[in-house]
Amino acid sequence: MMTPALSVAEISSLIDSRIKQLTLPVHPARLYEPIRYILSLGGKRLRPLLALMSYNLFAGDIDETILPALSLEVFHNFTLVHDDIMDKAPMRRGEETVHKRWDNNVAILSGDAMLVKAYQLLAQAPKDKLPALLSAFNKTAMEVCEGQQLDMDFEKRNLDSNIVTEAEYMDMIRLKTAVLFGLSFQLGGILGTQDEDIVEQLYNAGVQLGLAFQLQDDLLDLYGGEDFGKQVGGDILNAKKTFLQVKALELANEADGKKIIDIMANNKRPDQEKIAAIKLLYDRYKIYEIAQSQIERHLSDFEKALGAINSSRAIIMLDFVNSLAHRAV
Amino acid sequence: MMTPALSVAEISSLIDSRIKQLTLPVHPARLYEPIRYILSLGGKRLRPLLALMSYNLFAGDIDETILPALSLEVFHNFTLVHDDIMDKAPMRRGEETVHKRWDNNVAILSGDAMLVKAYQLLAQAPKDKLPALLSAFNKTAMEVCEGQQLDMDFEKRNLDSNIVTEAEYMDMIRLKTAVLFGLSFQLGGILGTQDEDIVEQLYNAGVQLGLAFQLQDDLLDLYGGEDFGKQVGGDILNAKKTFLQVKALELANEADGKKIIDIMANNKRPDQEKIAAIKLLYDRYKIYEIAQSQIERHLSDFEKALGAINSSRAIIMLDFVNSLAHRAV
Repeated sequence: MMTPALSVAEISSLIDSRIKQLTLPVHPARLYEPIRYILSLGGKRLRPLLALMSYNLFAGDIDETILPALSLEVFHNFTLVHDDIMDKAPMRRGEETVHKRWDNNVAILSGDAMLVKAYQLLAQAPKDKLPALLSAFNKTAMEVCEGQQLDMDFEKRNLDSNIVTEAEYMDMIRLKTAVLFGLSFQLGGILGTQDEDIVEQLYNAGVQLGLAFQLQDDLLDLYGGEDFGKQVGGDILNAKKTFLQVKALELANEADGKKIIDIMANNKRPDQEKIAAIKLLYDRYKIYEIAQSQIERHLSDFEKALGAINSSRAIIMLDFVNSLAHRAV
Repeated sequence: MMTPALSVAEISSLIDSRIKQLTLPVHPARLYEPIRYILSLGGKRLRPLLALMSYNLFAGDIDETILPALSLEVFHNFTLVHDDIMDKAPMRRGEETVHKRWDNNVAILSGDAMLVKAYQLLAQAPKDKLPALLSAFNKTAMEVCEGQQLDMDFEKRNLDSNIVTEAEYMDMIRLKTAVLFGLSFQLGGILGTQDEDIVEQLYNAGVQLGLAFQLQDDLLDLYGGEDFGKQVGGDILNAKKTFLQVKALELANEADGKKIIDIMANNKRPDQEKIAAIKLLYDRYKIYEIAQSQIERHLSDFEKALGAINSSRAIIMLDFVNSLAHRAV
């Protein structure tokens, strides 16, 4: 008989307590202190949570699964530390980024150590599962690097002469963000079931959820409101390539496209005016509605993939994702 | 019956051809091009060579072992790419470093991808060996990060008020350099034999060889002559903490210690004069002889550890190490 399924709150609190228990050496301090720091800043711990919920579709005793699931959180935080160097980002989760608080060298090296630490946590999985887990982890880790490179490449491209297409943008966020959601589901599946078709379904479900998650992030930046914790319209002020911008530049007539580019490039205009002007142009092309319908489509694909898995426990997962999907918009 | 042992030249040429065959995607170019570039710069491929020679102590058919052995070379090159950013080094093996030829962001990210690639190569090992290999690789990878952090910490310490001791220096090079030699021997052992005591002996032998190798590197910088390919005395001009400097500052009387510090800090004095003055002071305290005897001690410990392993093939390894040990001094 299966042990009882755990609630989201129970899994969450297990994750938090095990992250706090992660034993990292004290010495050398400038290697390990930044790792403790970034891991203590919190966040939703979404990736291990999804992995453990995925595992929980099949089995209730998650003890052996927690450390491998934490590898996803440590890996994710490694990417944040290195991405923040590359993006010159000063703040992360309301606190200074590692390279700001220490320096670039410290952030490079403690990021490297976090990537190794992620593999150490993964290696805590049962031995017979290790080959499949390692192969899946490696593939995704490499893709995340590819996604980050594409993101940097895109940021260098001109808005007018070398536009990023929607297909290119979707491919980039698939690699940079969505495949790690896929891996999270896959990891739970590899540990919870022998059925490779189900594991593949779980991976696909995770990727769809990841795409929805990133598109929603793009949407929340402009439409999420102040209480979402970030500056409203920050992506516009940074002329960042988001789904909203890419789609608007694709749909806009020549005059409106030029307006979008000019407004985003104009650093003399007051912030609120810039944001309002862009928002008006986005409204003209129903960008909000288009993004929202894309999110719904990926969520529906997620539910379909998950629904194909015969587990009475899928409802806990679906409930949780629903609460996530309606977090602010 | 064992297949015939391979010669060093045969193993070397296998390594070179398999590195050339490593398939890396073309796209995104700024992620993968730097990896191809740094791997094409050559070098002695010492770590996979030692791993395959270690494996060759037990078995002759090295085909299944080459890719896991290459993980050591890719890992080593990952550390070079990231260390060169941290050290702001412009040149590597006579060519521009990755961060110089591209930029820091490219070097950070393609370095990350190389670390992942190293794990991908390791994962090509037979499945039953993977748990032991992964655990050994992770431990060493983390220690190499620690060693690099200690190296950076040491470079920030004052020569007069906060001297690096010989014990601290030896601990640093053990972590930064020697344990990866240990892992190389260990990897060959894990793949070649079931006997865990022998694997441990091999690891210990590798660490001793790594210590000898790094001390010899320190020595060659000043005593290796022009034809060794580097600027003679470069470490003195950079006031770098090496075994020579650490030992000299430990042994020198107050006046001579102050001289060493002052000469190294004086950027107005001509290079050749600085090097000659330091060399005279080193001679006064027999630093060359002390370093040489330390090298001999570690080489002798290496031979002892290797000699305890009952393999008629150990002679190939010993011959090779002898040729390495007398590369220039």
